[in-house]
Amino acid sequence: MNRASAVQILALPGIPMVKAGDDIAALIEAGLVRAGLRLQAGDVLVIAQKIVSKAEGRLIDLASVTPSAEAVKLAEQVQKDPRVIELILSESVRVVRARPNLVITQHRLGFVMANAGVDQSNIASAEEAAQHALLLPRDPDGSAEALRARLSSAAGVAVAVIINDSFGRAWRRGTVGVAIGAAGLPALLDLRGTPDLFGRALQVTVSGFADEIAAAASLVMGQADEAQPVVLVRGLTWRAPDAPASELVRPPAEDLFR
Amino acid sequence: MNRASAVQILALPGIPMVKAGDDIAALIEAGLVRAGLRLQAGDVLVIAQKIVSKAEGRLIDLASVTPSAEAVKLAEQVQKDPRVIELILSESVRVVRARPNLVITQHRLGFVMANAGVDQSNIASAEEAAQHALLLPRDPDGSAEALRARLSSAAGVAVAVIINDSFGRAWRRGTVGVAIGAAGLPALLDLRGTPDLFGRALQVTVSGFADEIAAAASLVMGQADEAQPVVLVRGLTWRAPDAPASELVRPPAEDLFR
Repeated sequence: MNRASAVQILALPGIPMVKAGDDIAALIEAGLVRAGLRLQAGDVLVIAQKIVSKAEGRLIDLASVTPSAEAVKLAEQVQKDPRVIELILSESVRVVRARPNLVITQHRLGFVMANAGVDQSNIASAEEAAQHALLLPRDPDGSAEALRARLSSAAGVAVAVIINDSFGRAWRRGTVGVAIGAAGLPALLDLRGTPDLFGRALQVTVSGFADEIAAAASLVMGQADEAQPVVLVRGLTWRAPDAPASELVRPPAEDLFR
Repeated sequence: MNRASAVQILALPGIPMVKAGDDIAALIEAGLVRAGLRLQAGDVLVIAQKIVSKAEGRLIDLASVTPSAEAVKLAEQVQKDPRVIELILSESVRVVRARPNLVITQHRLGFVMANAGVDQSNIASAEEAAQHALLLPRDPDGSAEALRARLSSAAGVAVAVIINDSFGRAWRRGTVGVAIGAAGLPALLDLRGTPDLFGRALQVTVSGFADEIAAAASLVMGQADEAQPVVLVRGLTWRAPDAPASELVRPPAEDLFR
């Protein structure tokens, strides 16, 4: 067994609205103090993508965006604001599917996702949201690693960090939390060669460990996820080297659904 | 907020190996006693598909299987036992993708998944596994409902039940826990019309609630999931009518990736 049998999922209380330049590690440390919690070795902090993006200044004023001819054409097809489509295309390497009200692209980070993660919900007031869009962090694994280093050093114990987002899925309705950044744990847990209960090699043996943690945290973040954007997951154990969330991206050559 | 801010995930200790005809509800009740736990209203019991399938007699002796010509042909293409392929085809309505060592079908229950859920790991000894395969429960939502009714009635409080399995995903590596059966909770949590933090209608507002719970439970089940096949998830709250796991299946007409 390299997984624990009892896990706690705790939302940190009172994390304030985040704006560009805010220090997420400091906000987390204050939230821990507020909750009367001290970080322990093996704790995983799951942080909503939106607050990391906001802190990193990824909120874009649409007035600053000039849509390309390609964006204008796609915007007509999918019936969206051409400036938002311009941002989606600038964040993407390829459009995977486009239909009215739906654009699925391959983000430059590799993720196949709706709208390349460009989001206009939970931004600010309704008027402001119509004029702004939030992009994914430039390097979510790097952001997770920086937060991991800061938090571990301050606490004097090794903790892990996941940055999560809600993704739709092929074949299944509803969004689920997934990891777009990870540090301090194996995003994929490769059990190939580990015998199963009866000594037989397992057939399907690579688990999306960071994605399962991201989904678990999403349960307490709530849908309007800036309400409780930081969640502590305590009680997991693992024995495998760290690997970032980029490892969760299926290489196009292995992928049968593009 | 219709989600709680603190959730516990507890594996029930000492659940024995399960065989055809075993009473899963009785095994769970004994596991709760062993753990010193009493069910509370809103508790969710997540049960590994394998033990439900075994209890329901879904372990098939491959000696009893005669492959069709279609199964023999597909078995050559994907390099698998033709008898296992026969079972996969008999459980499926359509082959979605077939490659060497990989068969993805649409299960008759609607799930798009590898091998139609036909599994040869964690069955018994290596010799027995080569001669047997385990199918999904015939009606996982029905199995979940029967267990929910039994457990709620015995405990005198309303609990929910999820039957989970590990699925691969398009675009992302690693398997994650998903719900194949659910009762007593909304498998999908439809928040359409719920304003976000700033009063603006949410754009993506349907969450795969039961899938996120299934993934969270999978973290403590471990990969060799008969080790800890029953997990109690405590502390979630929701306000929406019950809906079964079949609601998680995206209708083919909405699906862009078949």
